[in-house]
Amino acid sequence: MSTTAPIPVDVRDAVHATARRARAASRQLALLTRAEKDAALTALADAIDAEAQSVVAANVEDLERGRAKGLPANLLDRLTLDVERVHSVASALRDVAALPDPVGEVVRGSTLANGLQIRQVRVPMGVVGMIYEARPNVTVDAAGLGLKSGNAVILRGGSAAASTNVRLVEILRAALEARGLNPDAINLLTEGGHDAGRALMTARGLVDLVIPRGGASLIQTVVTESTVPVIETGVGNCHVYVDAAADPEMAVRIVTNSKTHRTSVCNAAESLLVHRAIADTVLPAILRELGAAGVTVHGDPEVLRYAETVGVAHVPVTDEDDDTEFLSLDISARVVDDLDAAIAHVQEHTSGHTEAIVTGDRAAARRFTTEVDAAAVMVNASTRFTDGGEFGFGAEIGISTQKLHARGPMALPELTTTKWVVEGDGQVR
Amino acid sequence: MSTTAPIPVDVRDAVHATARRARAASRQLALLTRAEKDAALTALADAIDAEAQSVVAANVEDLERGRAKGLPANLLDRLTLDVERVHSVASALRDVAALPDPVGEVVRGSTLANGLQIRQVRVPMGVVGMIYEARPNVTVDAAGLGLKSGNAVILRGGSAAASTNVRLVEILRAALEARGLNPDAINLLTEGGHDAGRALMTARGLVDLVIPRGGASLIQTVVTESTVPVIETGVGNCHVYVDAAADPEMAVRIVTNSKTHRTSVCNAAESLLVHRAIADTVLPAILRELGAAGVTVHGDPEVLRYAETVGVAHVPVTDEDDDTEFLSLDISARVVDDLDAAIAHVQEHTSGHTEAIVTGDRAAARRFTTEVDAAAVMVNASTRFTDGGEFGFGAEIGISTQKLHARGPMALPELTTTKWVVEGDGQVR
Repeated sequence: MSTTAPIPVDVRDAVHATARRARAASRQLALLTRAEKDAALTALADAIDAEAQSVVAANVEDLERGRAKGLPANLLDRLTLDVERVHSVASALRDVAALPDPVGEVVRGSTLANGLQIRQVRVPMGVVGMIYEARPNVTVDAAGLGLKSGNAVILRGGSAAASTNVRLVEILRAALEARGLNPDAINLLTEGGHDAGRALMTARGLVDLVIPRGGASLIQTVVTESTVPVIETGVGNCHVYVDAAADPEMAVRIVTNSKTHRTSVCNAAESLLVHRAIADTVLPAILRELGAAGVTVHGDPEVLRYAETVGVAHVPVTDEDDDTEFLSLDISARVVDDLDAAIAHVQEHTSGHTEAIVTGDRAAARRFTTEVDAAAVMVNASTRFTDGGEFGFGAEIGISTQKLHARGPMALPELTTTKWVVEGDGQVR
Repeated sequence: MSTTAPIPVDVRDAVHATARRARAASRQLALLTRAEKDAALTALADAIDAEAQSVVAANVEDLERGRAKGLPANLLDRLTLDVERVHSVASALRDVAALPDPVGEVVRGSTLANGLQIRQVRVPMGVVGMIYEARPNVTVDAAGLGLKSGNAVILRGGSAAASTNVRLVEILRAALEARGLNPDAINLLTEGGHDAGRALMTARGLVDLVIPRGGASLIQTVVTESTVPVIETGVGNCHVYVDAAADPEMAVRIVTNSKTHRTSVCNAAESLLVHRAIADTVLPAILRELGAAGVTVHGDPEVLRYAETVGVAHVPVTDEDDDTEFLSLDISARVVDDLDAAIAHVQEHTSGHTEAIVTGDRAAARRFTTEVDAAAVMVNASTRFTDGGEFGFGAEIGISTQKLHARGPMALPELTTTKWVVEGDGQVR
């Protein structure tokens, strides 16, 4: 029997009231021209710049609370904003202003035999909820992408960044109001803890979309409890498969970069597969490079043999490792018999984020890109390239690992829906 | 406390086993060329034609069971297949064969500054679940659209059509097998009743998408219980707003057609709004036509005054009527003060399906199409045109009333997702 603790009525009512105000604001946002939205984004950026000191002061409160609670150093680092970082957060809003406006784009259209003119037009979603952890720059990015795409946003940030988020949203709302815009375009849920997040994800009819951005457990909760449509983001158990026909030097470079360039991100590699025919040639060099970067290899017996020879830190790989997003200097590694075995392994263990093959063989590349089912499939490139910025989309709201609506880096167009506009002169059926 | 009866383990295991077989079949489907899929669709159509008598015999069993249970005549009619209707069900598969293949379409792409070539390619969803009621033609349509779009389907039809659906799916699976294709591309859940449907909608990771097609209560259940992504379809509380600047004759024609052309469908009109300035001119004629077609008008006091004069059947409109999809010869009707009031009423009561304005005023049409938030907004055309066939898409799998992924008539492209294929020559970050 699935049981879920009820959401306290006062929390639910408060979230619903916020959502109704956001809905009213979204109607105004939907009518703004690109020029009006871009001017507003620039004004928001200027306001954050002008108030940078107060943001840093609020951030210090968060950091002190975090230290008192014993937050690990890497989390504290992700949380920290100095004046320079605040300016770069503000400047991201100017970058959003420079991006094309997706709203109003005519996606397709035609004139039907009966003379009806139909066109599918891109329009804002309406009210977008976002539930996320730690980094306060997400607050400003989400507000900016929401504004540009004509959506009101309801943000539920992590408690670790509570003071910073409150200050940032105060600044943003005041800047909207100063321009005669409805401040309810940008909302932060500050009360009610996790229950507020749950009220947000069940505010069906009031909220059009919820995007969780964070660890696997947050995403699992949202997916299970939400009755509002959800876009799942971010869990990446990314594989690099080194094919028999790989260029060895390229294989070393791509594996090392995919694993070690930045370990805490969803597009980092977590699993290495090496074709048996090339294992002798490439595995010692790959393991040496990984070892030099401080990586611990979770290897099958064959990999462990090489690891011992090379002297890299190693442990036996477990079944659980095959499905683990380490987000650390760890990688699971197996030798596979052939391309079929590599594809079968990836198909079984992929989280649907990014999968890469290193090969000089056209047929192998074609099979891998066709048969592997993931948001992005790379041939001879680092998994780290699955990123809105790298793809040239500007700021991203997350990387969707689901198949519905958006798959891969989500930028402005993914924050919109479409509407069919049908114009006639009296047609009936 | 929300409590849900547990799904019996044997039902869940059976559905999961079906889903795993469907997944395996979907991998084969994803690799088929358009020519192979079209030939298979034609073979499926031929098989149904050849076995038409056995389908009718199975259908007779359903009808007898339905009559014994006291099913209403209109439901029995929707359920009935004679040989001619079976041939038209088969011929729908040939129509699907003639449609373009969405799989493999390159949606967008570019070459990045670092030389990476990226392209977003349309690919099948994988395994699509469909939960629907009554009409057995949906079984064949869903199987055909699934095959063409490269998806395996798991169908959970209504119990009223159980024997017909079993026979149809037997024929389809045998025809696949005869062509050397995996019959698990088309699956019907026959055991476990509603629990099988619930097991399907919670088979996260095994099923990529669930589409409910049926009444409001079915859709509500799926939306609440599903952990698999859902596309909501079909509930249409469609309004026709007759603006002050409407052509009166056109207004009568569009209102009458929208309400009475076919009442049991989601794109039928359920609510009429008339601008006060034109009420005297158009309402008597509209009510006279509706009355002639047997419609009962649920009117506000002003509408009731006209209704009495004209002699059409009428009752006072209730608040509940404003949100009711009658699917019958009933319509709610109100006089409104102006365009603002009309838009506000529609915004409050729309189910997001189709909303229409009748007007000769460009500015009013522009405001209505911009501000009303629905899958389709009509100007001077019947609400009945929101339909995949009418839009020229061929067969449709349903009409999405949600904003995520698909909005409005869902055809082949809406049964696909995309994948980023990134090709490099050793790029790292």
